[in-house]
Amino acid sequence: MIVATGKKEDLEQARAQHLADEQDVMVVMLSDRQLLIPGLVDSHIHAPQYPNCGLGYDKPLLDWLQAYTYKLERKYRDLEYSKKVFNAVVRKTLNHGTTTACYFASMFEDASMILVDAVIEHGQRAFVGKINMTTLAPDDYKETPEETIKLTRKFIEAVRSKNCDLVEPIITPRFALSLEMDSMVELGHLVKEYDVNVQTHISENQDEVKEVNKKYGIQYANVYDEAGLLTPKTVLAHGIYLSDEELSLLRQRGSSVSHCPDSNTCLKSGMCDVRRLFNFGIKVGLGTDVSGGPSPSIVSAMRSALATSINLSFSQKNYKPLNYMDVFYLATLGGAEALSLDHKIGNFEVGKEFDALVVDMGAENCNTDMLLDCSPLELLQKFIYTGDDRNISNVFVAGKSVK
Amino acid sequence: MIVATGKKEDLEQARAQHLADEQDVMVVMLSDRQLLIPGLVDSHIHAPQYPNCGLGYDKPLLDWLQAYTYKLERKYRDLEYSKKVFNAVVRKTLNHGTTTACYFASMFEDASMILVDAVIEHGQRAFVGKINMTTLAPDDYKETPEETIKLTRKFIEAVRSKNCDLVEPIITPRFALSLEMDSMVELGHLVKEYDVNVQTHISENQDEVKEVNKKYGIQYANVYDEAGLLTPKTVLAHGIYLSDEELSLLRQRGSSVSHCPDSNTCLKSGMCDVRRLFNFGIKVGLGTDVSGGPSPSIVSAMRSALATSINLSFSQKNYKPLNYMDVFYLATLGGAEALSLDHKIGNFEVGKEFDALVVDMGAENCNTDMLLDCSPLELLQKFIYTGDDRNISNVFVAGKSVK
Ligand SMILES: [Zn+2]
Ligand SMILES: [Zn+2]
Repeated sequence: MIVATGKKEDLEQARAQHLADEQDVMVVMLSDRQLLIPGLVDSHIHAPQYPNCGLGYDKPLLDWLQAYTYKLERKYRDLEYSKKVFNAVVRKTLNHGTTTACYFASMFEDASMILVDAVIEHGQRAFVGKINMTTLAPDDYKETPEETIKLTRKFIEAVRSKNCDLVEPIITPRFALSLEMDSMVELGHLVKEYDVNVQTHISENQDEVKEVNKKYGIQYANVYDEAGLLTPKTVLAHGIYLSDEELSLLRQRGSSVSHCPDSNTCLKSGMCDVRRLFNFGIKVGLGTDVSGGPSPSIVSAMRSALATSINLSFSQKNYKPLNYMDVFYLATLGGAEALSLDHKIGNFEVGKEFDALVVDMGAENCNTDMLLDCSPLELLQKFIYTGDDRNISNVFVAGKSVK
Repeated sequence: MIVATGKKEDLEQARAQHLADEQDVMVVMLSDRQLLIPGLVDSHIHAPQYPNCGLGYDKPLLDWLQAYTYKLERKYRDLEYSKKVFNAVVRKTLNHGTTTACYFASMFEDASMILVDAVIEHGQRAFVGKINMTTLAPDDYKETPEETIKLTRKFIEAVRSKNCDLVEPIITPRFALSLEMDSMVELGHLVKEYDVNVQTHISENQDEVKEVNKKYGIQYANVYDEAGLLTPKTVLAHGIYLSDEELSLLRQRGSSVSHCPDSNTCLKSGMCDVRRLFNFGIKVGLGTDVSGGPSPSIVSAMRSALATSINLSFSQKNYKPLNYMDVFYLATLGGAEALSLDHKIGNFEVGKEFDALVVDMGAENCNTDMLLDCSPLELLQKFIYTGDDRNISNVFVAGKSVK
């Protein structure tokens, strides 16, 4: 836990107190090329899709789902393969500074538990969701309405029985076309019964929005609201085509959006207007949406968020695109708010947990040559625009070093 | 030189011939995670701006130039600093697979020669240009019209006297507002006298275009044409706002465009429509435009070119955005054509020089975990969408290993 912050002299008292309490205090002084920043939050990532990063973006969304996504996701019946992939994805995201991840796991409950184990083993903070899908999927890759509820309940209890402070189950209906309303309503009951977070997709693609409107006869956000799935602990991925009414509804419910710019570009979904979400008072975090996005890095997501916002600005008068400070916020405190974890993480407030990265722009063999002196804010710019995992020399989750 | 290409059995004869000629033939077999691809071409990069990568993009273009670019570029009076930076930039771009670079060097002739030396020492193929600027610059960072011509002549002869096949001088007026017409006409004479390539900027920013129109009373491309600077060996950076008439003129002259998507996004210049350039029959290559762009990597430029093209497609009906094959073309043969080097490099045609990369998607400690089998085209996609310098295990320029 963070016990004090401030200038060196302000910290003397806290330090003395701490030294009196225990002997193993370590003082770390950063070099003038290093920064300490809050851990990065990935508010939307599909662990089982990790092997597909970079593949199939020349196909349109539905072909891509069939040819790549579902084909791969079926493999997680194989628990050895699940172990291999899920350990790799947790290791990789931690290397990239993702101290908190909100995972879509597998439709399979046992494979999803393997992701939970990997997260616990590597010490990441995470939400893990067993996917619910009973329709609009290949025959050998969907569940019955009874199974999907039964296995979700089993999954929630199995995760909770791990008694790990860092990992929580999350209700994960794939999206409104993967389930009937009855199943979503039952999931809504589980949300209340277990007081769990919710994640799903919304308004990613114009064809998808039309299909949802056709199937339910109401707007997309209202579908989830009717099922009791829009809560202050709900995070919705994408939200590109939400209407003003839908945004007002999200705002009223306190639900958030996970902005996934890399994915929205690669899958040609559209450009999400984060400035508009801000103006509606919506909480927003960043998501990699692996493998809709090719990169497991939230640093890369920051760069894409900048690009999307700037490209949006060219066609709108007086539009103020996001700057590096804005995307840094999205990647840290914004993500914490989106996952309703801002009472615990997101910045260095006293009382919050110590989820942090040591950023080293002078790291050996990194991608950046330091050829002039930089202020701390310039180091941060260099990290956001040119940095990668090689510049993250240490990662802490709840005070524990995990890289 | 490439003496033969084909399937294994087709190569037996060429190999036997080669073995008869000399004894030191080495056979390299690639693994199923490796690819051999043509070397990457950076058709627009400012070597002295390299230390500024990632800095100052929150400022508008003109403030950025004053606060960052010109402030840094003045430092290259210091030849020790020049040596340090230019060695770093050549080393870095080679690491990223840039076998050919078209450099804006310094306004200072002696510093520019230090870049030439670095290029020769590290074995890169390059054009190096001493910048011409006599106006619209700080008083202590511009030349007189006499100096700029005299020193350019001196520079051309100094580079040619190195007798290095890989490095050529290139005429480099900064842009139409940095010189008066008289000086540009004199540079046009040097182009003819020495039969050298030309590089400059064009139509990067809407305000800049207006200023040029105001100063000269004609369209931007016509300014360069009037000075005799539009030749089949001229490459123009950016070209975002060129009119149909200007594009027809470029096509007629055989001049090319260096597309710099990273820079155009970071500096909020605009979105260059490469599809439109293709439709006009213009040759197009990719440029990092370091440090207008934050990354010295052409792989990163490929990703940005995809993003820009996809973002353009959202507002135009039936627009076909670039795909990974298109940007791979821009990064290799397109770049070679843009620099009029396609008779020598750009692909693996028999008779061309062996500028090539070994791409290894299974490299240790790289950013990509290989968790499923990939076809060669899938490996290429993974490289373009997720790869970096760690996946480039070997770099060849003119047959010589330089990484
Ligand atoms: Zn997703
Ligand atoms: Zn430039």
